[in-house]
Amino acid sequence: MFLTRTEYDRGVNTFSPEGRLFQVEYAIEAIKLGSTAIGIKTKEGVVLAVEKRITSPLLEPSSVEKIMEVDEHIGCAMSGLIADARTLVEHARVETQNHRFSYGEPMTVESTTQALCDLALRFGEGDEESMSRPFGVSLLIAGHDENGPSLYYTDPSGTFWQCNAKAIGSGSEGADSSLQEQYNKDLTLKEAETIALSILKQVMEEKVTPNNVDIAKVSPTYHLYSPSEVEAVISRL
Amino acid sequence: MFLTRTEYDRGVNTFSPEGRLFQVEYAIEAIKLGSTAIGIKTKEGVVLAVEKRITSPLLEPSSVEKIMEVDEHIGCAMSGLIADARTLVEHARVETQNHRFSYGEPMTVESTTQALCDLALRFGEGDEESMSRPFGVSLLIAGHDENGPSLYYTDPSGTFWQCNAKAIGSGSEGADSSLQEQYNKDLTLKEAETIALSILKQVMEEKVTPNNVDIAKVSPTYHLYSPSEVEAVISRL
Amino acid sequence: MFLTRTEYDRGVNTFSPEGRLFQVEYAIEAIKLGSTAIGIKTKEGVVLAVEKRITSPLLEPSSVEKIMEVDEHIGCAMSGLIADARTLVEHARVETQNHRFSYGEPMTVESTTQALCDLALRFGEGDEESMSRPFGVSLLIAGHDENGPSLYYTDPSGTFWQCNAKAIGSGSEGADSSLQEQYNKDLTLKEAETIALSILKQVMEEKVTPNNVDIAKVSPTYHLYSPSEVEAVISRL
Amino acid sequence: MFLTRTEYDRGVNTFSPEGRLFQVEYAIEAIKLGSTAIGIKTKEGVVLAVEKRITSPLLEPSSVEKIMEVDEHIGCAMSGLIADARTLVEHARVETQNHRFSYGEPMTVESTTQALCDLALRFGEGDEESMSRPFGVSLLIAGHDENGPSLYYTDPSGTFWQCNAKAIGSGSEGADSSLQEQYNKDLTLKEAETIALSILKQVMEEKVTPNNVDIAKVSPTYHLYSPSEVEAVISRL
Amino acid sequence: MFLTRTEYDRGVNTFSPEGRLFQVEYAIEAIKLGSTAIGIKTKEGVVLAVEKRITSPLLEPSSVEKIMEVDEHIGCAMSGLIADARTLVEHARVETQNHRFSYGEPMTVESTTQALCDLALRFGEGDEESMSRPFGVSLLIAGHDENGPSLYYTDPSGTFWQCNAKAIGSGSEGADSSLQEQYNKDLTLKEAETIALSILKQVMEEKVTPNNVDIAKVSPTYHLYSPSEVEAVISRL
Amino acid sequence: MFLTRTEYDRGVNTFSPEGRLFQVEYAIEAIKLGSTAIGIKTKEGVVLAVEKRITSPLLEPSSVEKIMEVDEHIGCAMSGLIADARTLVEHARVETQNHRFSYGEPMTVESTTQALCDLALRFGEGDEESMSRPFGVSLLIAGHDENGPSLYYTDPSGTFWQCNAKAIGSGSEGADSSLQEQYNKDLTLKEAETIALSILKQVMEEKVTPNNVDIAKVSPTYHLYSPSEVEAVISRL
Amino acid sequence: MFLTRTEYDRGVNTFSPEGRLFQVEYAIEAIKLGSTAIGIKTKEGVVLAVEKRITSPLLEPSSVEKIMEVDEHIGCAMSGLIADARTLVEHARVETQNHRFSYGEPMTVESTTQALCDLALRFGEGDEESMSRPFGVSLLIAGHDENGPSLYYTDPSGTFWQCNAKAIGSGSEGADSSLQEQYNKDLTLKEAETIALSILKQVMEEKVTPNNVDIAKVSPTYHLYSPSEVEAVISRL
Repeated sequence: MFLTRTEYDRGVNTFSPEGRLFQVEYAIEAIKLGSTAIGIKTKEGVVLAVEKRITSPLLEPSSVEKIMEVDEHIGCAMSGLIADARTLVEHARVETQNHRFSYGEPMTVESTTQALCDLALRFGEGDEESMSRPFGVSLLIAGHDENGPSLYYTDPSGTFWQCNAKAIGSGSEGADSSLQEQYNKDLTLKEAETIALSILKQVMEEKVTPNNVDIAKVSPTYHLYSPSEVEAVISRL
Repeated sequence: MFLTRTEYDRGVNTFSPEGRLFQVEYAIEAIKLGSTAIGIKTKEGVVLAVEKRITSPLLEPSSVEKIMEVDEHIGCAMSGLIADARTLVEHARVETQNHRFSYGEPMTVESTTQALCDLALRFGEGDEESMSRPFGVSLLIAGHDENGPSLYYTDPSGTFWQCNAKAIGSGSEGADSSLQEQYNKDLTLKEAETIALSILKQVMEEKVTPNNVDIAKVSPTYHLYSPSEVEAVISRL
Repeated sequence: MFLTRTEYDRGVNTFSPEGRLFQVEYAIEAIKLGSTAIGIKTKEGVVLAVEKRITSPLLEPSSVEKIMEVDEHIGCAMSGLIADARTLVEHARVETQNHRFSYGEPMTVESTTQALCDLALRFGEGDEESMSRPFGVSLLIAGHDENGPSLYYTDPSGTFWQCNAKAIGSGSEGADSSLQEQYNKDLTLKEAETIALSILKQVMEEKVTPNNVDIAKVSPTYHLYSPSEVEAVISRL
Repeated sequence: MFLTRTEYDRGVNTFSPEGRLFQVEYAIEAIKLGSTAIGIKTKEGVVLAVEKRITSPLLEPSSVEKIMEVDEHIGCAMSGLIADARTLVEHARVETQNHRFSYGEPMTVESTTQALCDLALRFGEGDEESMSRPFGVSLLIAGHDENGPSLYYTDPSGTFWQCNAKAIGSGSEGADSSLQEQYNKDLTLKEAETIALSILKQVMEEKVTPNNVDIAKVSPTYHLYSPSEVEAVISRL
Repeated sequence: MFLTRTEYDRGVNTFSPEGRLFQVEYAIEAIKLGSTAIGIKTKEGVVLAVEKRITSPLLEPSSVEKIMEVDEHIGCAMSGLIADARTLVEHARVETQNHRFSYGEPMTVESTTQALCDLALRFGEGDEESMSRPFGVSLLIAGHDENGPSLYYTDPSGTFWQCNAKAIGSGSEGADSSLQEQYNKDLTLKEAETIALSILKQVMEEKVTPNNVDIAKVSPTYHLYSPSEVEAVISRL
Repeated sequence: MFLTRTEYDRGVNTFSPEGRLFQVEYAIEAIKLGSTAIGIKTKEGVVLAVEKRITSPLLEPSSVEKIMEVDEHIGCAMSGLIADARTLVEHARVETQNHRFSYGEPMTVESTTQALCDLALRFGEGDEESMSRPFGVSLLIAGHDENGPSLYYTDPSGTFWQCNAKAIGSGSEGADSSLQEQYNKDLTLKEAETIALSILKQVMEEKVTPNNVDIAKVSPTYHLYSPSEVEAVISRL
Repeated sequence: MFLTRTEYDRGVNTFSPEGRLFQVEYAIEAIKLGSTAIGIKTKEGVVLAVEKRITSPLLEPSSVEKIMEVDEHIGCAMSGLIADARTLVEHARVETQNHRFSYGEPMTVESTTQALCDLALRFGEGDEESMSRPFGVSLLIAGHDENGPSLYYTDPSGTFWQCNAKAIGSGSEGADSSLQEQYNKDLTLKEAETIALSILKQVMEEKVTPNNVDIAKVSPTYHLYSPSEVEAVISRL
């Protein structure tokens, strides 16, 4: 008699008979509960747009940070457990700063992504920096380096992929379909802003306002849009 | 057959199949049993007010500390396990003192909050300072730095939010509703004192006296009200 | 189906779904089985009185120590597991001696109490000094420092409160009621001695003798009463 | 009554009564879910060919790396958990670089393979570099050293074999049969390219394009084929 | 439904819901299976007498050591697991020797007892010297220092008491009753020898001979009786 | 009610009520699944012969190493988990090299065997070099030192025996019977080669070829037979 | 409801409710499966005799070592797990050599025995040298020092006894009875040899030959009998 899958998932990092790692799969579930984030790569740079869930009018919208700067040429949007994401971003900031200090040049976007995934992979190892469980967060990492603009997507297993466009979080399924329809390689950054926000609008339950979305671009440096810049994009929808 | 949720919560820091972390959710329950605390941010500074449960007339009311100074520009109110809160506050005091020593200037309120949450996030990791379980405490962190007055709210997951006003503890649900009705950005510090205490009065089962509430402000430095100062606020209700 | 509370208490330091820490609650039960101890603060100093259970006439009564000196200005009475109490008191003695050595002045009573509670809080952490379970003991800490006389009460959770008077142990419920009736701020030390011993007499099953009670005072230094001094108090009842 | 096999596989590294190690067997299952990879050794060098599963048209095909360079004379193809494979390859890169630095000459292909397997064998040991579970990946390691070209195959148990040709991943069973039919020791490198790709074509569900396969050779140095070079091989089918 | 007490005793050092520590209670059971030992304090010194169970006529009676010298002014009798007792005595020997070396004077009997109990209390802590379970042994510690003769009794919980007379082991209940009847403070050492041996005789199943009892005194130095000295005491019964 | 044997084998290194160590017994099962190996000691030297299971015609037979050199005067044949055997052999190589370096002479065959068994015995101890489970391998260690030729046999319990002849692996039972019939102390090395291979032939399911058997001798130095040397022995059958 | 004894024995070193240590009791069972060993002390020295189970005629009888030299004045016979015994003996050899080096004189037999038992007692402690389970072996330690000849018997609990004569292993019960009948203090060494071997003969299932028994004496130095010396004793039976 085989144990059912539920008896395998309590060992934090153990294979089931079918070769699956359940804690990683459950962490991916945590992300499906998260707010939606969208990234689009264009020749001019990368656009990130996220939904912010403002659960109370007394909350300061700007303190709900779902897009963060990693280095001046890299930013990232996140979905899932925000405290986990902060730990990963903090790790990436140290790595990119160390790289600048040691080599006198910015770290490439791929190396930065790899460094984040190395940390994510090693959960349950008892290392000083690693967690005792998988990180419950997915990231969209937008950057610009000697290879031009690039967009990476990471998941809790420590795997990453390079994408032209990608959505994560609770609305990612519908958003990914819309992105496949509307994406082409010749989009301008401005068109990408409009597409990202119009798709986000479809998956959000509330009216889009500068308070409940954030937009950022890396083109070629990271810039988080001010409320009026967000307002300008909204007005184009 | 899936295990019920109760079989997942014994691994201190493990995801359930739905992507939840039960020990963190249970720690949040510990806070719902705690005494109520309220914070209100105004342009002039931040007001904190807490209920003190004096279980015996032989207890020294001043020794039931539910508001504590972190640094001269930061104070915090707490709800939940007081011994846990003391550990967190002690950690924050060391961090802010080290910052002053290293950089010759006060630590910002956000950095102090982030330092507290880093410690809270790492439960179950076996670090020297971290706990083997989540910290069973929520904090309202009031401070004043180069960005003016600010109010942060932290929970046992290590997440924090910036707020204009917030209530925590057993009476937080009703208190939050009242805060949303009565809060506006142009409140004076004096009006905030009155609102905080009048809301606290609603959720407390006993008559409000200088013995069973504490009030403090950061404006721009931390000050815990003396019994006569508290009496003065009570008399304005 | 929820697990019953008993399935949560085996993780030494884990929250139950209601946010409770059962090992701490069970340690508190250990104290309810202990002998009764009483502390009363007066303007002249603090009185501690304890019941000693002399299970055999062949036992040396003076070796059943339930009141101990911490430093010359601090003493404490205990109820619960005596071996645990000895560990805590030894820890406090080292702390107060180190403080005197480093700063050339006595440690305050509150700091000493805090140091004891820090150790008590960290059970299950694997530290060198901490225990793998909660300390099964409550303390009444009597002291005198620059703020005058003070009396603290600690429990196994690592929480402490300042009190005017307090009873711990198996007879604490009845003793606390009596203390609330008889306590006032203007008691003399001599009156406090009489009240403490008369209340102890009510909760003890045997006749009070210099063999089965101990009395000590901090006024302003620690003094454990000799059998004849105890006899003198008994004679005033 | 004997326990069924499922009760033995939860100890990460424990024998069952029949002398089996289930976690290793389950990790091998993880590989059977992976994409197919093929290696063929010829006198002129070794060819590696892999299927790339491009799950979304928005993914950048070149970022799905299933063939990686280890050193300039060694490359490897992988099937299974890509994040695990990256850790192994990174380990091998450090080993080969250290060898070059220490001895002034390249590491042999067998020593490199042995180093990878040493790491794979030690799972569950709590070492700094090892994993708490088996690595869920198989590798085809192609190289060229003083003994000429060679091809190694490793599995999650830390065992390795030298092969003339080998397939791994979900289509390995059919591919291995085809390889046994078509392989002979006198194949040219060009013939090997054609055979590898024609067999891969049989096991893939989609049409073969430069986007969904990668080809590399070590002859005598590692070279990953450009899309047009892949296109050229496809056109020969 | 509460768990029965048996489910709590597997955590080595965990409270039951009633505040009990079962492993300690079970260790105390181990002592109830042990041979009987008796100690009597007189003004002239302390007498220790123990039953030796000689399970085979081929055993060397003198190698069944149940009374041991700790320092020249301290000896101890034991009941329970002899190997555990040896570890404790060895620890005490090192402590007393270190004390002599550091301070140029013998360690007091109470300090020596405290040192033994500190070690006994810390079971399950993973310290270098402590055990992973409670020490399954009780000791009667006889000594003579600046305070004159003294007799201490320790149990597996790490608690100790000073006594005028005490019995431990399987016959302790009956022996303690006899001691209470026969003890008075003016006993001579010679009378104490006779009482100790006559009580031991009552609880032993065999005839008392120099082979199956040991007697020692501390008066003021430790002396283990020779067979002829034991014979002399026997002849007085 | 006693637990059945299966409930004892999960503690890696724990006795069952009958005094058995099940993980060691299960590891011995792993060897019964392995390929057969035979060793014969003669006055001229020791012969080792092993079956190689070539599961695919594409495998390089020479890479299936079941006989390995330890030092120039010691070789060993193995059956069971090959990756485990490699770890043991690597350990033995380091030990023999260190011995040569430190003492300027070769390590004796018995000391080398003892060193291997010391490592095998310590499984589950958490040492740096030891495994968390028993090594699933048996070795036949052939050597030549100042005491002349010798043959040792080790099993997963860390026990070793010196033998004149011995078979291990799946065919060991039949092979051992044949060895007892055919062995005598005056065998020449050449006769031993013939006997070893003829017995191996009986237990193998396939025809014996230079591809699926390996032969080696230590006489007085280690030598692995070339395919033509193996062919010569086959032709003598 | 109490747990049955089987549920207590899984904690390696935990008391049962009756105060028993089951893992130690199970290790003692392992010895009851072992071969029989006998020791006899005379005024001239100590004789050790053991049964050797030669399971195959191809085994080298001299490699089945059941009597080993510890130091030139100490030898020991063993029954149980031979690999465990080797670890203990190796430990004792290091201890006695260190003693000679530090003090310029041989270690006494009792101190050597104590050192062995200290190691045996500490199983499950995670020390570098200790085992994670009890040592499954009993030893008869024969020696000669300033106190003349002596014979010690140790069991897996770390307890030791001095004996005039003792048998261990599967035939120990019958052998002990015979020893009690035949032993007297005036035996010559030669008579002791004859008695030991005649008793061994009774408990062995096979005919006694120099191949299946070993004899050694310490008189005053350790000497293992040659086959012809054993033959001579056999001829006297």
